Amino acid sequence: MFFKIEKTDLKTSARCGTIFTEHGEIQTPIFMPVGTCGTVKGVHTNELKNEINAQIILGNTYHLYLRPGIFIINQAGGLHKFNGWDRPILTDSGGFQVFSLAKNRKLTEEGAVFKSHIDGSKHIFSPENVVEIQRNIGADIMMAFDECTPFPCEKKYAKNSLELTNKWLQRGWKKFNETMPLYGYKQFFFPIVQGSVYPDLRIEATKFVSDIGAEGNAIGGLSVGEQKETMYEILEIMNENLPKDKPRYLMGVGTPENLLEGIERGVDMFDCVMPTRNARNGMLFTENGTINIKNEKWKNDFSPIDENGTTFVDTFYSKAYLRHLVIANEILASQISSIHNLGFYLRLMEMARNHILDGNFSTWKKAILNNIMQRI
Amino acid sequence: MFFKIEKTDLKTSARCGTIFTEHGEIQTPIFMPVGTCGTVKGVHTNELKNEINAQIILGNTYHLYLRPGIFIINQAGGLHKFNGWDRPILTDSGGFQVFSLAKNRKLTEEGAVFKSHIDGSKHIFSPENVVEIQRNIGADIMMAFDECTPFPCEKKYAKNSLELTNKWLQRGWKKFNETMPLYGYKQFFFPIVQGSVYPDLRIEATKFVSDIGAEGNAIGGLSVGEQKETMYEILEIMNENLPKDKPRYLMGVGTPENLLEGIERGVDMFDCVMPTRNARNGMLFTENGTINIKNEKWKNDFSPIDENGTTFVDTFYSKAYLRHLVIANEILASQISSIHNLGFYLRLMEMARNHILDGNFSTWKKAILNNIMQRI
Repeated sequence: MFFKIEKTDLKTSARCGTIFTEHGEIQTPIFMPVGTCGTVKGVHTNELKNEINAQIILGNTYHLYLRPGIFIINQAGGLHKFNGWDRPILTDSGGFQVFSLAKNRKLTEEGAVFKSHIDGSKHIFSPENVVEIQRNIGADIMMAFDECTPFPCEKKYAKNSLELTNKWLQRGWKKFNETMPLYGYKQFFFPIVQGSVYPDLRIEATKFVSDIGAEGNAIGGLSVGEQKETMYEILEIMNENLPKDKPRYLMGVGTPENLLEGIERGVDMFDCVMPTRNARNGMLFTENGTINIKNEKWKNDFSPIDENGTTFVDTFYSKAYLRHLVIANEILASQISSIHNLGFYLRLMEMARNHILDGNFSTWKKAILNNIMQRI
Repeated sequence: MFFKIEKTDLKTSARCGTIFTEHGEIQTPIFMPVGTCGTVKGVHTNELKNEINAQIILGNTYHLYLRPGIFIINQAGGLHKFNGWDRPILTDSGGFQVFSLAKNRKLTEEGAVFKSHIDGSKHIFSPENVVEIQRNIGADIMMAFDECTPFPCEKKYAKNSLELTNKWLQRGWKKFNETMPLYGYKQFFFPIVQGSVYPDLRIEATKFVSDIGAEGNAIGGLSVGEQKETMYEILEIMNENLPKDKPRYLMGVGTPENLLEGIERGVDMFDCVMPTRNARNGMLFTENGTINIKNEKWKNDFSPIDENGTTFVDTFYSKAYLRHLVIANEILASQISSIHNLGFYLRLMEMARNHILDGNFSTWKKAILNNIMQRI
């Protein structure tokens, strides 16, 4: 068994469950910190486990493929061995990064030819070789190679793109089933639903993806510039059409608000660079709203960073001290803020889970959203 | 009692002892990690205490005065309260930083007028106000305001500079004795011996400094470009002429070799940015020699960073992984390398101390120096 639903909310589609992998269980809904290059920026592995309580992290196939390279990761015995993270890892397929290379990539039926952002060297990603690469990385969950449609996107483009994504999905799924894990533990493969903001395309894509019969499914192409209300509408369509008994992963999303709205619409898994990227710019998420720690008003506020926080940085360091570190451009600022923000994201998921279990998710969500969306 | 010598080596002038402050005891010989802006770059306070075993850290008056500013530190209740470091702190006087501003500072009998490297604003440091600033920072040990002579330095310049440094010392010492600690614990004041590379000036300076009768004394103006043999000769002169019953602090020095040679010549305290600055450039110090982790040869060396190391990074992360992080310009690279290097420096001091206690310092020093100076 890969996924077990423990409880579904009565008023909404929110549910909580457990995903089972050979690197451990994941309690959903879950947020996955992004470890682009095999490291969650500024955070030690022990902090990720013991302070943040991360249950699964994400690696980026594009970045890892270029650096350190698949040969090194293979020699290490996979990414878990290489970076010392012994809990589950999910890798994306590299598609999103490659397509954001703009002029430095060319799309064909075969795959995507692209130039490395590091040294300009030429590479190709295909539905087949990204499966092989992810076999080498050793992700517990790997993703299909897809085209993430831009926004805005004309319907004709979206339709053609979806056809390509679906063809690629078939090829990737075939490759996945023809190949074996390299390191002795089971790997899973998630297809991705595309279709831009067009309900009929999304429904078509969902059917195609559902027919594949993978252990879990992902929703791609959202949070790329559309209104959040549009995203929530698409999520409702996905919620109705995706298999209910399999985990749903909303890719690259988002704000704490997005996560709660996603959970309400039956999403189980999230990832986003926001908590760490914003941390490095001095933005903190808290239960009482977001803080721009660079603001003058914090300069002599010696209260803890977050009295409700459960990581050591939350109560050990003060707002005034963190502000000083940010202004002085000290590395420690990024470290503290990243631990805080990730700790908050994981705690938010844990709270959501507990309120689903307690049967009062909606009430809680409404109350906390009011606070979270403040700027303090 | 401020300083108690526990044992002096029979063959050399190496000694070990304990310095007593109200923020705790310091076992000498000791290395003090540099926390320029109130943070040891890339290292959390808990890691500094529990992994690195730092007993005292250094703060830079120049940097802290400009940012966050003395008003903020005072409001926090001193630097210990501000940054959460509850063990001893030593602050320099700002002299060294101000003089390195080159064209952006002007020296007068009164003090030094300088422009901030941050915003170009104009400030003055005098022997008196740097005492007041260090009272506000709340350093357990504060330093006299001096001119650190450049290298090379003509004797006439060195002589005039020394006269100024000595006059400033008298004024600073007077101010120190006329003022009180602000936060309820005792502060100590160390004068600094200058005199460039001229033995007669150094002896003259030592007499002047000794007559002040402070609780400890510092040796400045070394490791500024002179040959290391010259530094060791000056240290021998200092060793003969400085009071034996008071701790000697060799400022801004240096390599592991410099530290061991300093200990052999009766030095008790050291500080240097080298372990952290070099860490940020991918250079690791180990008992077997220095490692340039960027080197191609480490790319698939999955052995621990340092098998002899006692910090968690030493055995948790591999050389290949650290190399990858350095090449990918990841923050975590600086974090890991800084913890490793500081852990090594503190461990080197602890080993030296234990071998002085065991009566075999010379033999040990000779053996370990052979290894430390290798490049591997």
